[in-house]
Order: sequence, then structure tokens, then C-alpha cells
Amino acid sequence: MKRIYLDHAATTPVRPEVKKIMDAFQSDYFGNPSAIYFEGRQAKAALDNARKLIAKILSVEADEIIFTNGGTESINLALLGISRQHRNLFKKPRLITSRIEHPAVLETMKQLAKEGFEVIYLPVDKFGVVKTEELKKALNKQTLLISIMYANNEIGTIQPIAKIAKIIKDFKNRVGTKAQAQIPQFPLFHTDACQAAGSLEIRPSKLGVNLMSLNASKIYGPKASGLLYVKKGIELKPIILGGGQENKLRSGTENVASWIGLAEALKLGQKEKAAEAKRLRILRDYFIKNLLKIPKTFLNGHPRNRLVNNINVTILDIEGEALILQLDKYGISASTGSACHSKILQPSHVLMAIGLDPATIHGSLRLTLGRDTKKKNVDSALKVINKVVKELRGLSAVNIQSNENKK
Amino acid sequence: MKRIYLDHAATTPVRPEVKKIMDAFQSDYFGNPSAIYFEGRQAKAALDNARKLIAKILSVEADEIIFTNGGTESINLALLGISRQHRNLFKKPRLITSRIEHPAVLETMKQLAKEGFEVIYLPVDKFGVVKTEELKKALNKQTLLISIMYANNEIGTIQPIAKIAKIIKDFKNRVGTKAQAQIPQFPLFHTDACQAAGSLEIRPSKLGVNLMSLNASKIYGPKASGLLYVKKGIELKPIILGGGQENKLRSGTENVASWIGLAEALKLGQKEKAAEAKRLRILRDYFIKNLLKIPKTFLNGHPRNRLVNNINVTILDIEGEALILQLDKYGISASTGSACHSKILQPSHVLMAIGLDPATIHGSLRLTLGRDTKKKNVDSALKVINKVVKELRGLSAVNIQSNENKK
Repeated sequence: MKRIYLDHAATTPVRPEVKKIMDAFQSDYFGNPSAIYFEGRQAKAALDNARKLIAKILSVEADEIIFTNGGTESINLALLGISRQHRNLFKKPRLITSRIEHPAVLETMKQLAKEGFEVIYLPVDKFGVVKTEELKKALNKQTLLISIMYANNEIGTIQPIAKIAKIIKDFKNRVGTKAQAQIPQFPLFHTDACQAAGSLEIRPSKLGVNLMSLNASKIYGPKASGLLYVKKGIELKPIILGGGQENKLRSGTENVASWIGLAEALKLGQKEKAAEAKRLRILRDYFIKNLLKIPKTFLNGHPRNRLVNNINVTILDIEGEALILQLDKYGISASTGSACHSKILQPSHVLMAIGLDPATIHGSLRLTLGRDTKKKNVDSALKVINKVVKELRGLSAVNIQSNENKK
Repeated sequence: MKRIYLDHAATTPVRPEVKKIMDAFQSDYFGNPSAIYFEGRQAKAALDNARKLIAKILSVEADEIIFTNGGTESINLALLGISRQHRNLFKKPRLITSRIEHPAVLETMKQLAKEGFEVIYLPVDKFGVVKTEELKKALNKQTLLISIMYANNEIGTIQPIAKIAKIIKDFKNRVGTKAQAQIPQFPLFHTDACQAAGSLEIRPSKLGVNLMSLNASKIYGPKASGLLYVKKGIELKPIILGGGQENKLRSGTENVASWIGLAEALKLGQKEKAAEAKRLRILRDYFIKNLLKIPKTFLNGHPRNRLVNNINVTILDIEGEALILQLDKYGISASTGSACHSKILQPSHVLMAIGLDPATIHGSLRLTLGRDTKKKNVDSALKVINKVVKELRGLSAVNIQSNENKK
């Protein structure tokens, strides 16, 4: 049985072209980029080229890119690095984020709250869109940083990042703060774009963000490889100290192969983005339309402003984990909630935030398509899902009945 | 011209067996280990096996291993994680380290000093061995953590880790502290064993350490792959927050391929350790003996208790960087100071600590042998070094004369 992998939001395989380019830098070109001899210069040149290539794709300067070991580290560096560096410009520094962020943002915000920052969690509407009116209310003279994800990893909802940037800009123009007098960019705007790189506009100038986190493992690059874009002139404190690599912002021998892999994955992804987005959008809508034919099933997330590869539905009277395990037996890989915390039995904070009750949340199913997903795979998956849902609902009906009988 | 790479302390290539095993986990077995379906369980099982394999090699429990993205991160997690977690057990918590540690330790200690910790930097003798009498004096009731590197990356000197552990243990037995009443292991002992894994005993129980940092890129594994051993029962604060991977101590999607690569590199290295150490020791001593035939040349580091692959000499009247660049032209890769900060023009803190004056330090040459280094390579290198030293000394003699003439 050939399996059908439908969890590309959790992670993607490394595509062959990327693997090939990485290979050479594991063995033949393995030098330490800090060394001044041939092997070192060779590695340094390759890394410089990767940085320039990414800078070109993002329409930014090469020295605005800090390479990291993954999306989580990028986000930690952005939030901890900015907040700790500039806290003294504010009396009671405020951080603003949303209720549906990735744990890398939420857990880091919790840590910053312990360090004395005030953290505001913006609510979202029933589609998972941040309530911009609430953002307007939350912005004040003490606001240091706003961090809003670009596209949600669970329900796929795309946030209006440029609109949010405009609100922040208008606030800046209206309200002169002490911090702004010293650093005109304040308050700063960071976006976690880890889920967005494959299909959306990611040039910071088009989005209006000062900082942006990206990673490779969602775009057919290697795991533990990411970057943080930081607009020139904005200082931040490193979270990992040592040899002072990455302009003193991220110590540790440069992860050359993986960072070259990130650049290559990004490059190839950009080339194919328009066509692939079009193909996936059609496939996604076909998948959703047919899933919703299952009785007592509804869509989570925005009907239109959602990632081209994201499908998230709630199937009532079904327990999500049982569904996933049953689909797995039939060779289909999918998730309930997000893979990052499928081990946690708490209901998804994202589905809670869009107003679902805990009982309903347990029946959620996330399917995320990828480069290798064809229409015939979707048709096979639909057949299996229909079958499994019937089986499980039959079981739960029996359970309910037998429970009734016991009474 | 086939190059001769003599900077294995800076980094090593990934050996083919390791690359092969990693390859499969980039593409075919790429699942997210947190996912409960087939691809996830497959990745999880592979990661569990890697952890068990390492635990067996180190004679520790599997859950005492925290995987990280490299040696620098391991060290940061150990020092920041332990210090920040337990600071409240002490009135004025003290940290003890040595003057010749890697920047990952020294820079992190600087940060902790800013956070209110008292940091004691132990001096070393002329061979680079930590003065244990000074350690005895430095240990007090406020001591939270001692971090001493196992083997030095620049001069190769091996520290008497077991002896240091004994001193700490004797102190514990003699002096009951408030912290000990709560956590009997206090003060804790961490060692940076990044340079030691290839040739020395690395079982924590044999060394008497509570924490140990290791990485892959010095033992023919991938870059940005490491681990921190933490003895069971010792809590520490994470430095990167998010999905809660690695027992909540190191968030971010697991770097499966690289961690499997680390396990494989460690396994293969252990098998060959005894024979390879014997071979390299003979080669090293032959290299040193012949280098010291160059007039006005002396050895840095310990004559016997040094890494089997480390050669570090000072060649007087020579400027190290010019030497390295000249050797590079003849196809030989070597370093002056350490590769990690060769871009920094400050004299090596290690050579300063063993008592060399700044002018002398600039003539230091580090050569570190590896698996691919043969006697014929050493002979070729010796020939080139002799030639280049004569050329450069000729030049500096001319310079001195021409300077004399100007007077």
C-alpha cells in the first residue's frame, strides 16, 4: 500500500534538488566558514551566496538575514532578543500578540510576562482573523513589539498583515512616544511566516514588518534550519552566546549545509509558487467541498483567506485521535490539532479561540496538501475518510446505546 | 595539488557511513516525531534508538540526554539553564570556570555576571592545566556550578576532570550548604567535552560530572548537532521555548537526521577510538619532534596530557596569519589561535593564560590531525612549513634591516 501523506504543515521531505546541493557541503566542502584558508573561504563564499540569494528573494539586504537553527529559534530570538534589548526604553513595556499563535510565540510570551512585560493577547473572529479593532485599542505608548503570525498552522487562516502594519504605522504617526524619539521604528512588528513561505508574498517591505521568522522544514528544505529577518538599524540581544557568528547574534559553528539548503528550497519554491498555489487551491476546494458532504461536518478557518494547502474540518460525534489512528491504518497521514502538540491532550487553543467548545474540538481533522499530492490521492483519501467516519460513528452510536442500556 | 587539511579541531567532514544514514531521514523517513501516524512513529522510533545508542555509549539513561543544535547551544543550555533555575537557592550565587574555556562558556559567563552571578575564573599553569589549589580556594557555600572544559581546543591540554570532580566531592562531603539540603548534588559540575569525544573517556560516571556537552561536527558528524547530558533529578530552565520537545527543555521540531548522525558518528568513533588514538599519538609526536627542530620554536600546551591529534607551536619572528595564508597557498590548512575567532585580531586568551606575551602569541600555529591524515601528509606539511618559515623569516629580517636603515 502506497501511503498518502497529508500533513505537510507538520513537516515536508527534503526535495531531491535541495538534498543534492546540501550533500556536497556535508563532505567535500565541509570547512568552517570562520577559517581563513581555502576550505573555510569556500564555505564562507557559499554561505554568503545563500544569504544574498535569500536577500534577493525577500528584497532585503543580505546583512538583514540572521540564520538560525529553525523557526522556533528564530521566533525566540525575535521576541526575547528585541524585548530584552529595549525594555529600558519603557516604563511598563507592552507586547501584543494573538490568541492563535504557535507555541513558540505563546510560550516565549509567557516567559516575558514573568520578566515583567505586559502581554496582550488579541482575540480572533470565528474564522480566526485577528480583530483589528482590538489591536487599535491595545496599542499604547508603552508598546514595544507586536507579533502576529502570517498564516495559522492549524486552520490555515491568513492574517491581514499589511493592514495590521498600516494600523501600527498610523498609530506611530499619531502618537509620538519616548521610545520613538530614540528609535523611530517603535513599536516593532514581527510576523511568524513559517507556514506562509510556500504560497504567500513574503517580502517584508510589501508586508510592512520589521522582523520576520521563516524556516526550511515546511518548504521541502532540511529540519532545524531557519532565518530571522531584522530590518537594518534594529538591535537585539542574542539568546545563544559564544564565538559571535551571525554578526554576534547567533553563536555556534555555521550550519552551512542546512542554510544553503534553506536558500535552495526557498528559491525553488518561489519559482513554482504561482502555479503550485493555483493547483493546490483547486485541489483544496475540491477536498473541502466533498468533505462537507459528510453529515454534521463543518469547516474551520476562513473560507477564502486560507493557505492553499490547508483543510481543517470538524466531524461531529468523532474522536479526532481515533480518526487519525484509523486513517493511519488505511495509509493516510493526517492530524488533529497540530503535530507539534498532538501528544498533549488539551483541546487546541486555536479552535478554542475561534469559539468551538472542547467537545466539538476533539473531532477536528487537519489535512495539508503538498507537492506530491494529486487529485487521485484526494479521491482515495475522501473514500477512506467516509468509510472510517461511518465505522467510528457506528461505534459511538453503539457505545451510546450500551451506555444508555447500563443506566 | 591535493590539499592537506590539518584543522580537524575546527570541524571535520561528515564521514560517508554517517552521511548515508542521515540521507534516508532527510527524504524517505522525514516525518515529524511528534505526529502519531506511521511517518511520525517511524521518525520517533529512529530518534529513540539514537538516544538509546548514545546512552549506552555514555553509560547513562536515555532520558538523561537532551539533543541540541550543537556544542555552543548545549553549553548555553547547561550554564544558563542551571544557573537561572537554581539561583534562588543562593544569596550570591557563585560560578567557577577557567580562563581557557571556549567562548561559548566565557561569553555565557559574562552574561550571567550581568545577571548578578559572581564568576571566578581559575588560572592555569604554563601547560594550560587548571590550578586545582585555586579551585579548592574558590569553592564556597555559595557555589552553584563549576564548568571546566575537558580538553582545550587550541593547545589540546587535557584537564584532570576526575581529579577536579574528587575535589568538588570532598568539598560537598565536608561542607553542608543550604542548597545541598534541597539538592544533594550541589555544587554541580559541567564539562565541555566537545574536543574530547574523539579520543578520551567520555562516560560521565567515570569523569564524575553532572552535566556534559558534546557535539557531532568534531567527530565526523554533521554541523549544528549536539547533546547535553544532565544527570537525572537535576532541573534546568530551557533557553528556547515552544512546542516542548526534548522533555520541554529544547523546543523546535526534532532535528532527526542530524541527531541520528550524531549517534552514528559517536558509535563509529568509539569503535575505532583506541586504535586511532594510538596511531594519531605517534603521528603527533613525530610532527612535534620535527617542528621543534625549526630554530626558535617551542611547544604550547602539555607535553603528554594533550589531545592525540593536537599540535600547537609558537614559531618566533613569524606572524601567524601570514604563516596560515602562506601555508594555504601550498595547499595546507592550519590555524593560528582557534578557527572560531580567527577573524578577531585579539591575541588568543588561551595563550595569554599560559603566560605568553602578545607578541609571541602572534606566531602560534595549530595543526590538528584527523582520520585521513597519513605520515606522508605530515612529511609534506613539515617540508612546506620549514620552507615557509624560512621565507617569512627572511622577509621579516629584511623588514627589520630596512627599518634599521631608516633610523
